[in-house]
Amino acid sequence: MNKIITISREFGSGGRELGKRIAEELQIAYYDREIVTDIAKRSELAEDYVGQILENRIMTYYPITVASSFAAMPPTDTLHYVNHGIYNAQNEIIRELGQKSDCVIVGRCADYILEDQKPYDIFVYAYMEARLARCRAKGGKDAELSDKELIKKIQAIDKSRAQYYRFYTGRTWGERTNYDLCVNTSGWDIEKLAKLIAELIRQHD
Amino acid sequence: MNKIITISREFGSGGRELGKRIAEELQIAYYDREIVTDIAKRSELAEDYVGQILENRIMTYYPITVASSFAAMPPTDTLHYVNHGIYNAQNEIIRELGQKSDCVIVGRCADYILEDQKPYDIFVYAYMEARLARCRAKGGKDAELSDKELIKKIQAIDKSRAQYYRFYTGRTWGERTNYDLCVNTSGWDIEKLAKLIAELIRQHD
Repeated sequence: MNKIITISREFGSGGRELGKRIAEELQIAYYDREIVTDIAKRSELAEDYVGQILENRIMTYYPITVASSFAAMPPTDTLHYVNHGIYNAQNEIIRELGQKSDCVIVGRCADYILEDQKPYDIFVYAYMEARLARCRAKGGKDAELSDKELIKKIQAIDKSRAQYYRFYTGRTWGERTNYDLCVNTSGWDIEKLAKLIAELIRQHD
Repeated sequence: MNKIITISREFGSGGRELGKRIAEELQIAYYDREIVTDIAKRSELAEDYVGQILENRIMTYYPITVASSFAAMPPTDTLHYVNHGIYNAQNEIIRELGQKSDCVIVGRCADYILEDQKPYDIFVYAYMEARLARCRAKGGKDAELSDKELIKKIQAIDKSRAQYYRFYTGRTWGERTNYDLCVNTSGWDIEKLAKLIAELIRQHD
């Protein structure tokens, strides 16, 4: 069975970088945006649009209370098909990637989708102060926001990720019992931390 | 400032052993039962009795809903003084230990009590199956219980720890945001894991 590491992460916690560096350390494949690109190709939608839906939009149309009765919902909304179709395509691709080789997969409910392959599941988080600093250091549009605006953005993205995860897995995003390791990156140099966690994964049975 | 590591742990997760081995790896002091012994000496109560109260009993007398109005409670119950007195003595001792040297402290709300000294806070947990196996491997009375009885015991002790923690800290026991690292010990050899986490602590700023 392939060695699979899944990374779930709070926005601004450095989880994506951590995942990438762990993959480099272990010299295995790394996936995040690539999956979306692949989905976009299959579904013939623009990558940006797909990315936006995956990250931020889907729950706008399907509030959390609907989840349990989702299967019984009447197919009245076209967007329902688009979004749910994307999830299905993504699910399929993640399964293919998990069969192909050892890999690190960031986000996309991969911990749940690949559960049968017993991945090593990591949740990455950080104190708000550290997340603000990380967002600012990255530059771009986020760096232009006030602290209040940036906190609001961070919280909104996390909420969206939690809802997306709850919707498709029925589980609570970030609840330790769903993971093998939950790591607070505040104060860490991500490169250093990645080396340590890679070693931990190497030695994990 | 001394390097302090606090360990909170689910019953049967191997947290105590992990703490002890981390202390050995780092060659620093280790405390758990010792603290209770010290408290027992000061309060002139038998250690077993104190241990029992600390671990299992205190919340029987003060349900969680009372916590916020605790200070205003009329002093009608002698046991109230005994229990709260024990917490105060324990609190004082933990502060002294934190001042004395680098150390690992297991349980006793040390993460909260020593917050000013910025300890590295670890929460240790495991799947129920792994906890059952660990309890059985230890032998003693637990090994004689049926799975159902043992699960009931494990859950009762965890509940008691959570209530104790909530009562004195106002926080949620086991919620990742209160810790620097949450580690699932299922499938791990604790000695191996301790070496890896000790290295992580060494490299933490």
